[in-house]
Amino acid sequence: MEKDTLEDYERLLLKYRDLAVLGSAKGVLQWDTETMMPPGAFELRGQQLALLSKIEHSMITDREIGELLERIERGQGYESLNQVQKRNVYLIRKQYDENTRLPEELVTETERQAIACYKQWRDAKAAKDFKIFEPELRKMFELKKRAAEILSEVKGVKTLYDALVDFFEPKVSEGAIGNTFDQLKSRLIPIISKYSSCQPNTDWLKRVVPHNVQVEIAKRVAEFINYDIGGDGARGRIDPTEHPFTIGYYDDVRITTHYYEDNFTSSIFSVLHEGGHALYELNLDPSWKYQPVGTACSFGFHESQSRFVENVVGRSKHFWTYFLPILNKLTSGQFSDIDTAKALEAVNSVKPSKIRIEADEATYALHIIIRFEIESALFSGKVDVKELPQVWNEKYSKYLGVEIQNDAEGVLQDVHWAHGYFGYFPSYALGNIYCAQILNKLEEEVKDCWSEVERGNFEPTRQWLTRNVHRAGNLYDPMDLLVKVTGEGINPNHFADYLEGKYRSIYG
Amino acid sequence: MEKDTLEDYERLLLKYRDLAVLGSAKGVLQWDTETMMPPGAFELRGQQLALLSKIEHSMITDREIGELLERIERGQGYESLNQVQKRNVYLIRKQYDENTRLPEELVTETERQAIACYKQWRDAKAAKDFKIFEPELRKMFELKKRAAEILSEVKGVKTLYDALVDFFEPKVSEGAIGNTFDQLKSRLIPIISKYSSCQPNTDWLKRVVPHNVQVEIAKRVAEFINYDIGGDGARGRIDPTEHPFTIGYYDDVRITTHYYEDNFTSSIFSVLHEGGHALYELNLDPSWKYQPVGTACSFGFHESQSRFVENVVGRSKHFWTYFLPILNKLTSGQFSDIDTAKALEAVNSVKPSKIRIEADEATYALHIIIRFEIESALFSGKVDVKELPQVWNEKYSKYLGVEIQNDAEGVLQDVHWAHGYFGYFPSYALGNIYCAQILNKLEEEVKDCWSEVERGNFEPTRQWLTRNVHRAGNLYDPMDLLVKVTGEGINPNHFADYLEGKYRSIYG
Repeated sequence: MEKDTLEDYERLLLKYRDLAVLGSAKGVLQWDTETMMPPGAFELRGQQLALLSKIEHSMITDREIGELLERIERGQGYESLNQVQKRNVYLIRKQYDENTRLPEELVTETERQAIACYKQWRDAKAAKDFKIFEPELRKMFELKKRAAEILSEVKGVKTLYDALVDFFEPKVSEGAIGNTFDQLKSRLIPIISKYSSCQPNTDWLKRVVPHNVQVEIAKRVAEFINYDIGGDGARGRIDPTEHPFTIGYYDDVRITTHYYEDNFTSSIFSVLHEGGHALYELNLDPSWKYQPVGTACSFGFHESQSRFVENVVGRSKHFWTYFLPILNKLTSGQFSDIDTAKALEAVNSVKPSKIRIEADEATYALHIIIRFEIESALFSGKVDVKELPQVWNEKYSKYLGVEIQNDAEGVLQDVHWAHGYFGYFPSYALGNIYCAQILNKLEEEVKDCWSEVERGNFEPTRQWLTRNVHRAGNLYDPMDLLVKVTGEGINPNHFADYLEGKYRSIYG
Repeated sequence: MEKDTLEDYERLLLKYRDLAVLGSAKGVLQWDTETMMPPGAFELRGQQLALLSKIEHSMITDREIGELLERIERGQGYESLNQVQKRNVYLIRKQYDENTRLPEELVTETERQAIACYKQWRDAKAAKDFKIFEPELRKMFELKKRAAEILSEVKGVKTLYDALVDFFEPKVSEGAIGNTFDQLKSRLIPIISKYSSCQPNTDWLKRVVPHNVQVEIAKRVAEFINYDIGGDGARGRIDPTEHPFTIGYYDDVRITTHYYEDNFTSSIFSVLHEGGHALYELNLDPSWKYQPVGTACSFGFHESQSRFVENVVGRSKHFWTYFLPILNKLTSGQFSDIDTAKALEAVNSVKPSKIRIEADEATYALHIIIRFEIESALFSGKVDVKELPQVWNEKYSKYLGVEIQNDAEGVLQDVHWAHGYFGYFPSYALGNIYCAQILNKLEEEVKDCWSEVERGNFEPTRQWLTRNVHRAGNLYDPMDLLVKVTGEGINPNHFADYLEGKYRSIYG
């Protein structure tokens, strides 16, 4: 009997292997779309991605997978499977159920609606008028509600919003996020109000650094974090795109950045941020390649890694102590009047603003909390789609003290809802929270991590992250992994403490 | 009844559409492998391409396609299908039969053997010793013979070699190629012997032109042939690779080139050659996109287009009259001592050599004829695998007057046989022959084609090629298309006449 279970399990893994490989091929096409594709190929690329998604979907919902799962789960051999094997079965079951229970008509309609919705969102943003977006957004919201109704049952969760969050942050509930964010909000508001009055000199950040020099800087940053883009066994590369992103699987993880000639740190932080994502994927356990456990734990955990490298490391005294002389050398002394203290002040300035993607480390989380509160109210029926601009503007005024002048700089700024990505935003702030908790543990276990960074050696830190986070892959749900790594459940105070400590040491 | 046939036909085309789209996606991955892929991703890329091939094969051999074909072909509505529809049915039937009749075990073994064979070929070439390659090549030859035995029956052709040629040059027989090549050989040998004694000054071709200047030259060459790599609707791009190639489908056709700093014309001719391939794909009938007829006619016809642009245009007085001043401008006068006559002499020098890919326009065909004669003798049992080096060296001595010193510069120079590509070589020389026949017709119909080229206007020529060759897509088999375009069956004398005429005008 056990032999049968093992055979079924191996067969199931083979099926999943094809899915992993297909997904990675799709990733290359998605990367190509943003970086290399001739613009005239837009329609053809749409056909290619749609076809691969169709094939992917038919592979995920292949009836044989259902039969294998059934036999394995009910077989007498199930209990003899080890933890990794059971987790693989669990993750394939989850994917299978989610994909087979949603009516195909709903999936197709949602995909079609995403295209219409995106188009309207673009028009509405250009016209700075939410009303243009409202009808299509409402349809999208209704479709997502229908999906959430079905999925909340499949997933066995309490609220509709729980079902949506679960895609990004498995088993993290709306209630838990609410509590965590409330605590964080109450800590962040006074911190922001205190340090936003310190306005350091940031003018020097606008000094023009030519494109080709920034490419060299990006290479050095990549080298520092040990993201190999040049060697014979290189598994990464950096290309310029409008918006930076990371795409890849195991041995081929590519990042992008944007070179603004009058904002050279933008690319430095993009390379660090995307590099953090890339290190996660590149350092997953090689023996788990092509298995469900050989994927990242959650969007929040992914974000914890990118933010760790970008903010915790990249905005630290230690990094700038190391990197400022290099920067000076690469720019032929363009920043010889800047010392580490000045650099630190400038890259850590706190200032409430309207646009999320331009926000600093402290205010960023408030942007997310606002979006979470709005999404939560929307799916529980407390707010209607048409009220979104009003609710948005009120919260920005109340939490961040900024007055939104029009919908383009307000409720229309993000593309997520147009794509139907409700429940995604919380992961960004959860990433910050996980990140600070991980930092505490790292400092406890790797005493010399910072002195090594000052010497340009990020490896002890990277190796610790790999051992504790990357190598865990998708063996645990995020809350379990957090306890596993840090010995503690979710606790936003560490993030607030970290910010407070950093700002105190910089601004006194 | 007719309605049923049409419905089946539409369904069949939908199935083919997926195949076309999948093939184009695979093409992007193949391009990426040679241009952008981080080297560490080699194994993963192999998995991706193998999976897509597996999916492709299962789509080609989908039983529903067989049923649809059966119903359409036997249906009363078949006769009401138009020419294009019938051709589509024919081409899908051909693909279906070829793929379903070959035993899966044979296909898999051939793929595996290609990997082993390629490895041995590389080792043998490095050691300059055919004997190292011989055992693996023999296995490959036996596998291809088995496939040819099955396929010659499926295709209803006379010889084993016919069945192999048919993949590249549908319905062109070994016998017809033999006759054509015999005629061509008897014309070429005296031409080569006459003009290889004129040894023009080619030293200036070695003047160093820096990489970045060559990139600009490549752009101007692309612009000349109207291969759009820069505009908002661009459907092409140029990247450097070890060996130049073209990959693409309809709206995304990419070419590559190689920039040798001490051989700047290499890239010019590569861009013209690959650009000729690209123009073919880019100018297929847009209304035939995703249909079998919306593909090129044959490898030989493809080669006729690349050689037309590279040799007929790119090595003409007219092109150099136009391009030499531009070249001078882009290189800040590096070639101001060279006039059109000198340029023409240098880029048209005739010299028998050992290596096919370095051969000039006249001797190139002899390299191909040698390969054809050897393959033909191999598959008819007149020559054994172990005799290949001897036969090779004899023919090089006899036809080209060169003495091969070792197998690396002889029988091991090409990778084709290691991949199992028997029957491929003839298409290269058939391309030359088609090309010269096409040229005659063009000059008859577009009287000012050359005066326009001298003014930098390739469009009248390109448009004529598009109208007559590109737009015909795969509606005809190559011999039929040749008659359609030129009014004449295959006739190698035009190619010999063209060479003779050109060399006479250059060398007197």
